[in-house]
Amino acid sequence: MPYLRNCWYMAAWSDGVGPGKVIGRTILDEPVALFRDTVGQIGAVEDRCPHRFAPLSAGKVNDRGILVCGYHGLGFDRTGACVANPHGAVLRAARVRSWPVVERYGIIWIWMGDAARCDPGLIPDFSWLDAAPASARSHGEILSGGGGYELYVDNIMDLSHTDHLHADTLGGGGVVFNKPKVTSTDEWIEVAWQSRSTRPPAFYPRMIPNLPELVDLTLRVRWFAASAMRLDAEVRHEGKEGDDCHRGTAAHIFTPESEDSTHYFYAMTRNYAADDEAVNQMIAETRARIFQTEDKPMIERVHAAMKGRDFWDMKPLLLRIDEGGVQVRRRLLKLIEDEARREPALAAS
Amino acid sequence: MPYLRNCWYMAAWSDGVGPGKVIGRTILDEPVALFRDTVGQIGAVEDRCPHRFAPLSAGKVNDRGILVCGYHGLGFDRTGACVANPHGAVLRAARVRSWPVVERYGIIWIWMGDAARCDPGLIPDFSWLDAAPASARSHGEILSGGGGYELYVDNIMDLSHTDHLHADTLGGGGVVFNKPKVTSTDEWIEVAWQSRSTRPPAFYPRMIPNLPELVDLTLRVRWFAASAMRLDAEVRHEGKEGDDCHRGTAAHIFTPESEDSTHYFYAMTRNYAADDEAVNQMIAETRARIFQTEDKPMIERVHAAMKGRDFWDMKPLLLRIDEGGVQVRRRLLKLIEDEARREPALAAS
Amino acid sequence: MPYLRNCWYMAAWSDGVGPGKVIGRTILDEPVALFRDTVGQIGAVEDRCPHRFAPLSAGKVNDRGILVCGYHGLGFDRTGACVANPHGAVLRAARVRSWPVVERYGIIWIWMGDAARCDPGLIPDFSWLDAAPASARSHGEILSGGGGYELYVDNIMDLSHTDHLHADTLGGGGVVFNKPKVTSTDEWIEVAWQSRSTRPPAFYPRMIPNLPELVDLTLRVRWFAASAMRLDAEVRHEGKEGDDCHRGTAAHIFTPESEDSTHYFYAMTRNYAADDEAVNQMIAETRARIFQTEDKPMIERVHAAMKGRDFWDMKPLLLRIDEGGVQVRRRLLKLIEDEARREPALAAS
Repeated sequence: MPYLRNCWYMAAWSDGVGPGKVIGRTILDEPVALFRDTVGQIGAVEDRCPHRFAPLSAGKVNDRGILVCGYHGLGFDRTGACVANPHGAVLRAARVRSWPVVERYGIIWIWMGDAARCDPGLIPDFSWLDAAPASARSHGEILSGGGGYELYVDNIMDLSHTDHLHADTLGGGGVVFNKPKVTSTDEWIEVAWQSRSTRPPAFYPRMIPNLPELVDLTLRVRWFAASAMRLDAEVRHEGKEGDDCHRGTAAHIFTPESEDSTHYFYAMTRNYAADDEAVNQMIAETRARIFQTEDKPMIERVHAAMKGRDFWDMKPLLLRIDEGGVQVRRRLLKLIEDEARREPALAAS
Repeated sequence: MPYLRNCWYMAAWSDGVGPGKVIGRTILDEPVALFRDTVGQIGAVEDRCPHRFAPLSAGKVNDRGILVCGYHGLGFDRTGACVANPHGAVLRAARVRSWPVVERYGIIWIWMGDAARCDPGLIPDFSWLDAAPASARSHGEILSGGGGYELYVDNIMDLSHTDHLHADTLGGGGVVFNKPKVTSTDEWIEVAWQSRSTRPPAFYPRMIPNLPELVDLTLRVRWFAASAMRLDAEVRHEGKEGDDCHRGTAAHIFTPESEDSTHYFYAMTRNYAADDEAVNQMIAETRARIFQTEDKPMIERVHAAMKGRDFWDMKPLLLRIDEGGVQVRRRLLKLIEDEARREPALAAS
Repeated sequence: MPYLRNCWYMAAWSDGVGPGKVIGRTILDEPVALFRDTVGQIGAVEDRCPHRFAPLSAGKVNDRGILVCGYHGLGFDRTGACVANPHGAVLRAARVRSWPVVERYGIIWIWMGDAARCDPGLIPDFSWLDAAPASARSHGEILSGGGGYELYVDNIMDLSHTDHLHADTLGGGGVVFNKPKVTSTDEWIEVAWQSRSTRPPAFYPRMIPNLPELVDLTLRVRWFAASAMRLDAEVRHEGKEGDDCHRGTAAHIFTPESEDSTHYFYAMTRNYAADDEAVNQMIAETRARIFQTEDKPMIERVHAAMKGRDFWDMKPLLLRIDEGGVQVRRRLLKLIEDEARREPALAAS
């Protein structure tokens, strides 16, 4: 399946590209050098010098904010123009490709599609990330996990996996035993589970102070094209309603590295024990361990089992838990087909 | 070369699949989950859940003896039928493939061919494995060694390699210098070496008590299709005949993982120092080291040198030591061709 | 690009093949076993026994100077003839391929082309290696570095990379800021840089005693087909001329392992602190570290970025620093095309 191009992908966490720093990352098969210039602006340029093809991310940002190749010293600005040549006159015609970037919610978003259609208004609303205090927020990433981003999206769209893959932490207690409810708009597709008087997952009492043995629980996953997801887990003392709850909100944002590998960015905020740094640290470490040692290996094994075959060609057995994930796959396919029809050149790129 | 399918392959040592345990293994290119249910029966089913393609071997066997997928919890019995679904009604139509298995001689045998032709009477006789006391028996395995099973069979059919590859242990003394004698029946092909008044290999005095400097030595290797082998090494004080000897009997059983990799299962029993646990342990460790650090690397280097080319196309120089191995290769080729003629669909599978 | 075949390639340092030793190495895609017989002569034969395709380099040289296969014991002499068979009569017809070798300047040179055209007179003059005392000479190697040999040659032809890739050691001070001068003969292509009253690179004062802050500096790189290079670095107190200088002379000799990987052999001699073993050791270690951790990774990243595409098809941006390297690439291409025209069979081999 080709990529959806006219949308924003997460390229990195903002704090992953410090002042005067450059990193290299493959996004939608393109080598991208992300760098922050001296006034704090982010540039995203082709990570391949036109001289001898060295990765520009192996170079450095000089004190004028120019990205300088680490092999023979050509320099490029955020537009990709060659603006420095230690070996003679600056070669105004020389340039590398560049992509639009926007920094918002502590995230560097990149537009890999038609620059003329680039619209920051299309960035999904993750403002809740900014709203949380530092002691109630953590984030991390898994770079280049095996398997396409669709498998990573499926994994979150169907949280019933937590009962089996994360039995000792996020699962347990039949939280996701009930049939989930799927709703959608043009902007998102959401799947929600509700359980009353249920035992919370094993990990919850470690996060939430004074949790009773039985609670009402709501899990809500909302997907935004192509692959940004918000997950709300709401715990209520029995009979409570609405906002009077312990709420943890997580971001699961996936960026295709290639058709067969994915960058996995995750974050979590919470409205309980919000000033407890120790709980914050414990949550960050537990989640990093779960994603790294449980989700990633399982998705990689599924990817290996598929041996490059198309998901639908393999005739997956569909269960009621798959409704949300299947809607996402169909929506994505339609968006990609529509885009290819509207902009054939883009699809071929 | 395609595989011979209507025969028994060794899938695992019985003690490698404990009660309530599951392991995953590729056999003849097929992903197989081997599990033991609550009454001790072994199941061999396709190692890929039909729901989301997770390997079932990453799941577990529940207290009803059902193999439960570790991703979303579908459960399967030994016939491959889906018998548990935590997300709704059990899907009677859903199933995974299963293969006939028989447990005999401490070995789990699997039939990867036409189930209608499956006949436990075709399992080669390795009952001598059962006959030895625990203190005179050891076994081990090398999983996924590089190189096709034919190279592993060749290695044992031509024991002259011991003089060079295992000069300090199994070789030495010109044991296999004489021309070997090859005999055969419909069931097996055997190659035998005899030396009189010869120095035993360096390793023998460490195993056999009070060994004289010169002995009579017989080595006999018997191959059963497709790739199970028995090796008898008989040491006699000069002039003794028949069963009055020190005899070590070894199993070398090979199972194709793919055309390019092989599972190597080995065992040894002996009629000397039969209650000496320390000797038993020393033999087990020495043999494991030799196979792992001498045979496997050499076969892998031969495999690499062949670069995927056919053995006969490479025009190997044939020596008199190759007669047994060449007969095996020809017999195998004929068996495979006969099978393909009789059952074209099987060959294509 | 196919290889230039009728020329000498460096197979190994002489001291890398001790008396009675054998090593295996792939050269121009051919597996080569290099061994030294009992009278000190080097043989270069196909590293694949004709019997069962074991690498002969996994065997050993016996006390008659014969290379004996480590699998079943066939023996071969330096011409590739089979001269020993422990399993019967010697098979006079059996042989492996062999290549001409010459040992000169502490280097084992191999001729991978038409043996009839083999001429030791074509070995490039590296006699300066022999001229230096042991305390003013060091050498090393990087086996199987990623990237074709052309990229390794480019790297040395354009020393402007030192200012960026080796900023803290070999670069610095604008040594290679000036436009280099390119000269050539039928035998070599040379590129030279000259700077007057310049700060020497950071590493120089650690090597050269009593170096002033500003010196005159000359760097001269001379390439001999296909891929042997000599690099002279001359440091003069301001105003001095000719041979009255501190001179370090380095060999950078590249041998294709395959189209995508290269053996990198390097050496250095010097005329200063020539009896200082500690300086010699420090230079050897610093250079090994630089090549291993700076040049090799950069070349491997360039190679990866090229994704198997042809250098010219990628339309590299040419700078004035590329003149020497481009001349070498054009010369090589012409030599290879001429050779293919003269000896089509050789080119196809």
